[in-house]
Amino acid sequence: MSNLKEQVGIKAAEFVTDGMVVGLGTGSTAYYFVQEIGRRVKEEGLQIVGVTTSHATAEQAASLGIPLKNIDDVESVDLTVDGADEVDSQFNGIKGGGAALLMEKVVAVNSKDCIWIVDESKVVETLGAFKLPVEVVQYGSENLFRLFETKGYRPSFRITNGKKHVTDMQNFIIDLDLGRIEDARALSDELDHTVGVVEHGLFIGLISKVIVGRPEGPQILEKN
Amino acid sequence: MSNLKEQVGIKAAEFVTDGMVVGLGTGSTAYYFVQEIGRRVKEEGLQIVGVTTSHATAEQAASLGIPLKNIDDVESVDLTVDGADEVDSQFNGIKGGGAALLMEKVVAVNSKDCIWIVDESKVVETLGAFKLPVEVVQYGSENLFRLFETKGYRPSFRITNGKKHVTDMQNFIIDLDLGRIEDARALSDELDHTVGVVEHGLFIGLISKVIVGRPEGPQILEKN
Repeated sequence: MSNLKEQVGIKAAEFVTDGMVVGLGTGSTAYYFVQEIGRRVKEEGLQIVGVTTSHATAEQAASLGIPLKNIDDVESVDLTVDGADEVDSQFNGIKGGGAALLMEKVVAVNSKDCIWIVDESKVVETLGAFKLPVEVVQYGSENLFRLFETKGYRPSFRITNGKKHVTDMQNFIIDLDLGRIEDARALSDELDHTVGVVEHGLFIGLISKVIVGRPEGPQILEKN
Repeated sequence: MSNLKEQVGIKAAEFVTDGMVVGLGTGSTAYYFVQEIGRRVKEEGLQIVGVTTSHATAEQAASLGIPLKNIDDVESVDLTVDGADEVDSQFNGIKGGGAALLMEKVVAVNSKDCIWIVDESKVVETLGAFKLPVEVVQYGSENLFRLFETKGYRPSFRITNGKKHVTDMQNFIIDLDLGRIEDARALSDELDHTVGVVEHGLFIGLISKVIVGRPEGPQILEKN
């Protein structure tokens, strides 16, 4: 699997050119993209500025010598490359397995172009087999949990080292075990309106290209 | 003005009865409500549990000996009494001048009944003369600020002691100087969908009763 991830990470880096502000994704696939960008900066003198989507990616990029700026210090991002946990044929998807969904989404909405890189196991007919992460304000999160239970969303708090996981933004994550999301846009709207929800892992209409890692080589899917 | 605030604070406390879980609002008007509840707990043996909407109110209530629980430790709140910065004839309003809007909204949506207490200066035909507070994630907040500027919302960061105000939840506040909000529900929807917005000060359809302080005595407005 990891060579499929590496394959698409390197492929995506081909879309990066001198002068770009580049959003650097988070996770085990984006890792290889960031490594390749670091290699090109070092070996080929690639001139870019990176904007990171998590503390983890910031550390990785800094260690590779990639020049970084805060999202607030750039007008916009030219291209963001990130992984995803699931993506469907409409290029809608679920992100947030790595708990960085909020920063990832902030960077994505401020990007002129977004590419997702995934191994072929992430491409699905219908979203929902992957648990949908919802980032919630700590205050009132038990009540929100009960609300999700009542709605049949089978919630569970994300746990790290025996405690509720606290995100980079000091929130909790509630994962929803939905099985099958019939209408991703409607669910996205509903969660947007839910008080206490800071963000959720449904990314709707934000992606222009998906690069899928397959044993026979990377496949580039473009939006019609 | 402060005697109008005191008048409605004391009036609202009449709706509190033994056994209730009571949401205790924040601000200069809710202050008098909390004082009166404290007095009744002490002098009349009123048996209630309070749920607070800010660190400031938690301190006030604790100092008065009101038993407190966290919102997450109660099934729901029976009645919340809070102030507001503006309220219109549909009982929609703006809250958040005190920067506690997020906790206030979390408590309000978990309450079976909500009463707002205001002096008569807060009752308006159309919302918007009061700047609308929007609580935003720090990360990406400059981009959000620019987005609001582009939309003509005349944003300004809330400043405290010369620095961007940080809320109890570690977010920033951007105040929107809208002048006149033609469609409060539509704006509420738009802000709900905006990535980086944690919550905003528009409270739509959450209130059943408004008690208005007037020189001739408190006026109770009930929803039809």
